[in-house]
Amino acid sequence: MDVGALVFDVFGTVVDWRAGVAREAARLLGPGVDAAAFADAWRARYQPSMDRVRAGERPFVPLDVLHRESLPAALAEVGIDGVGMDGVGMDGVADDVAAELVLAWHRLDPWPDAVPGLTRLRSRHVLAPLSNGGVRLSVDLARRGGLPWDLVLGAEVVGRYKPDPEVYDSAPRLLALPPSRVLMVAAHVEDLAEARARGLRTAYVHRPLEFGGDPAPPETDPGADLSVSSLEELAAALGC
Amino acid sequence: MDVGALVFDVFGTVVDWRAGVAREAARLLGPGVDAAAFADAWRARYQPSMDRVRAGERPFVPLDVLHRESLPAALAEVGIDGVGMDGVGMDGVADDVAAELVLAWHRLDPWPDAVPGLTRLRSRHVLAPLSNGGVRLSVDLARRGGLPWDLVLGAEVVGRYKPDPEVYDSAPRLLALPPSRVLMVAAHVEDLAEARARGLRTAYVHRPLEFGGDPAPPETDPGADLSVSSLEELAAALGC
Repeated sequence: MDVGALVFDVFGTVVDWRAGVAREAARLLGPGVDAAAFADAWRARYQPSMDRVRAGERPFVPLDVLHRESLPAALAEVGIDGVGMDGVGMDGVADDVAAELVLAWHRLDPWPDAVPGLTRLRSRHVLAPLSNGGVRLSVDLARRGGLPWDLVLGAEVVGRYKPDPEVYDSAPRLLALPPSRVLMVAAHVEDLAEARARGLRTAYVHRPLEFGGDPAPPETDPGADLSVSSLEELAAALGC
Repeated sequence: MDVGALVFDVFGTVVDWRAGVAREAARLLGPGVDAAAFADAWRARYQPSMDRVRAGERPFVPLDVLHRESLPAALAEVGIDGVGMDGVGMDGVADDVAAELVLAWHRLDPWPDAVPGLTRLRSRHVLAPLSNGGVRLSVDLARRGGLPWDLVLGAEVVGRYKPDPEVYDSAPRLLALPPSRVLMVAAHVEDLAEARARGLRTAYVHRPLEFGGDPAPPETDPGADLSVSSLEELAAALGC
């Protein structure tokens, strides 16, 4: 493959959103809450939360706004009713705690292979996130975890959410490369299928623990150009 | 100043466009051409080349396209007439040489203080270019020179050229900061005045050799929050 740049899905592919959100939830909500169940409940609202933007029924807003909107329902699933009450307690979460919870998504740690793999890949290729997370979120994750991006691409740069084609198309356009020289890397076969439909090359990363093991993702993606189990394996496959 | 992020003009402020373009011109056009005069002639067409985009008379195109369009007139000023002739010679420049000349703007070296200054600043602040150069151009300059940007902002991200307000506004918007916590750094008082009009803080960098010493830029900008003579001095002023 004659690759000029690699673009990456981030949540689940580069960082472990489940452990990070659960860690912040335990810190902010206390030991009485099932933090992993809360993380799963919030994440379950991730794709649906973007649907009205994708359908053009509301203007684009960054993912932080959608996370804040879906927070009360996720809290309710673990027995916490309401946001914006007078104080913090089992019956409600104060506005400042809600704001901190939204920032949990900016404080996720990379999978252990991510930084060594990306560092090797960057020696020969331009690297960027192509996430539905906002620009500031991507910057915060990179500074926290040491992710060596050359630039930040993604949903907020174009004002659309994946899988809208404009997001995938923005990568070759802004990198001044033909789509066939841009490799999209993700742990989700749907994301890769949409990228392929726009002419990008694709690499699947198997992340068995993204959802805590259940559901278990497929070990490989037969539709992808490459399937690997870590970003270090991807670096090796590309000769880096 | 409570600064959260710094955004930088690039040509002249961070990199020495004149020496870099002259070096590439000497390499590609041979010793018979006054390479510094050619660099100055090309740069003189830089601001006018964006006017029709700014006026809405043509759609946004990246700076590489404008550089290619203004190349023949710049060549003519140093006695080379025409692009796209059969070969390379005193009477014309082949298409592939023209394309290489456009890439000269991707191959500019940082001023000596730029990388040490930026490295110190990045320890505490988010850093991004906010240039009229394209995204790929900014990435190429960063990879060549080791500029430690967190992300790439600028004209192509918003499809407008400075001094259109959308370019300045994009920095606080995408960085999720109030404009008063974004510091625009430039060697050009006009750029800083426009940034200030959008609520950004401003720092002027004195670059006496940007135009080879003639014209000489002012030593300070009384309208700016800070005036410095290097990015290392800026880092010291911000306590980095």
